[in-house]
Amino acid sequence: MTVTKADINDAAARIAGHVHVTPVMRSDAFGLPLQFKLEHTQLTGSFKARGAFNSVLTADVPDAGFVAASGGNHGAAVAHAATSLGHTARIYVPEFAGPAKIDVIRQTGADLHIVEGAYADAAAAAKAYQDQTGALDIHPFDAPATLAGQGTCFKEWDAQGMDADTVIIAIGGGGLIGSAMSWFKNRNIIGVESETTNSMHAALQHGPETDIEVSGICANALGAKRIGRLSYDLAKSNDLQTLLLPDEEIAHAQKLLWQNLRQLVEPAGAAALAAITSGAYKPAKNEKVAVLLCGANPAPIPI
Amino acid sequence: MTVTKADINDAAARIAGHVHVTPVMRSDAFGLPLQFKLEHTQLTGSFKARGAFNSVLTADVPDAGFVAASGGNHGAAVAHAATSLGHTARIYVPEFAGPAKIDVIRQTGADLHIVEGAYADAAAAAKAYQDQTGALDIHPFDAPATLAGQGTCFKEWDAQGMDADTVIIAIGGGGLIGSAMSWFKNRNIIGVESETTNSMHAALQHGPETDIEVSGICANALGAKRIGRLSYDLAKSNDLQTLLLPDEEIAHAQKLLWQNLRQLVEPAGAAALAAITSGAYKPAKNEKVAVLLCGANPAPIPI
Repeated sequence: MTVTKADINDAAARIAGHVHVTPVMRSDAFGLPLQFKLEHTQLTGSFKARGAFNSVLTADVPDAGFVAASGGNHGAAVAHAATSLGHTARIYVPEFAGPAKIDVIRQTGADLHIVEGAYADAAAAAKAYQDQTGALDIHPFDAPATLAGQGTCFKEWDAQGMDADTVIIAIGGGGLIGSAMSWFKNRNIIGVESETTNSMHAALQHGPETDIEVSGICANALGAKRIGRLSYDLAKSNDLQTLLLPDEEIAHAQKLLWQNLRQLVEPAGAAALAAITSGAYKPAKNEKVAVLLCGANPAPIPI
Repeated sequence: MTVTKADINDAAARIAGHVHVTPVMRSDAFGLPLQFKLEHTQLTGSFKARGAFNSVLTADVPDAGFVAASGGNHGAAVAHAATSLGHTARIYVPEFAGPAKIDVIRQTGADLHIVEGAYADAAAAAKAYQDQTGALDIHPFDAPATLAGQGTCFKEWDAQGMDADTVIIAIGGGGLIGSAMSWFKNRNIIGVESETTNSMHAALQHGPETDIEVSGICANALGAKRIGRLSYDLAKSNDLQTLLLPDEEIAHAQKLLWQNLRQLVEPAGAAALAAITSGAYKPAKNEKVAVLLCGANPAPIPI
């Protein structure tokens, strides 16, 4: 199973008008010239809206509508995409997702269920509902329609005049980085994980069925227990370079983004920049570097 | 005394590389198609960096360097422009400017002086220092170099493919709206003031030397006691349309910007959007509307 550039082109045509074309900007304020895409300005506050619209628009929708289990951003995206297209959506959210993410879902008018415990408990509740009603589950990262949707972010960036040798992208379940590997054929892709949400890193070391324990400031956004198989296979075949960063460096990058660009992202949304500001990734002289800011649903008291 | 398009072109060449090219985006999320320029992503968090760099770069700099009195954004901009070009800068800030704005100035390494009382007290302190030392004062809004610098924002927006019949802009002392009237010759310009920072409105009613009392949530950014004469004259000759909005509508627009674009601006930065979201300005059918987001230095706990 694979996702092609043609799939991404089709997805882009399908979701046009349903999502924001997110802005790009350049800045030298971080000590070297960087290009940014402000994908956190996407509807519902993250790139997830792209995959959600592509999935909803290509689905054969059952009477029971959609169901999702999500740490937050995916749930918000499915809730928004489904309800704005006139479908029902039941969203199970683990309570640790935090009030900001949960509020985003509540505002869509979706049928919100807050589940005690971790992501796995929300996923179990969603599965039970799905078995009982036939509601359609949209996988947050490991499905071709999801990847094709997320890939429209990179197609769009190219069309906006991206001029980069290297693109730095945060990894959660792998949907976004997988779509980047599906779209970009001539750019160096760097994947960034926090040390305590290291599903890709663990899988590349120990095999694709490696489960991890997630924790830390990125857990409610990047905290997939196991990397998606689609993205794992792409990472293996592309020899993906990944970096592991401590939470302190990610929090520092989040603060620098506010200080220099007045962009308020969640920790996961600043992880890609942290690869630069921590010194973990050192670009070569004249290497042109692009950084994706991918999500902005932090707690209400952010900086 | 006037500012021409040639002055703005010269300023743009002069400050290029010292300031951000700020991003633009479109969104239908506010009930109609809108074009935005995210000028609050400018260095120091507001458009003021443009005028400050243009002023510093055209100045004959005395040994004592620069001095400014500012409610905050202008002070931050002068502090950043002067210090980053190797000059000293003494900045007097009234304490009501708030900790976020004051912190921005502190971070530049400028010589920061917090003055008890209102803007007038900070201005008096700055004047005394200037008389004593010969330091150069940069006016926050009523000077040709300032207007020419701010106007580069609109030149840039045109070059980014702005496609608007109407541009909505907040008014403080008038530097930004004055520069818009200097640059745009074929677009309808709407100026927005809060009801309690209505210096332009008062001047257009009662004459250019009308002083007002300022208060409310925009006071520390839009709170000029008297509109700048350059902008007043432009407003008279261009028959500028202005709107007065209550603080509640401005605060509501600020919240909508976060909900829909994940852009966290200060109240003054949302005033232009509030003209639309409050219904105070009702575009005609097919009228293309552009909204400038001009500043983002709110208190640290913002939404």
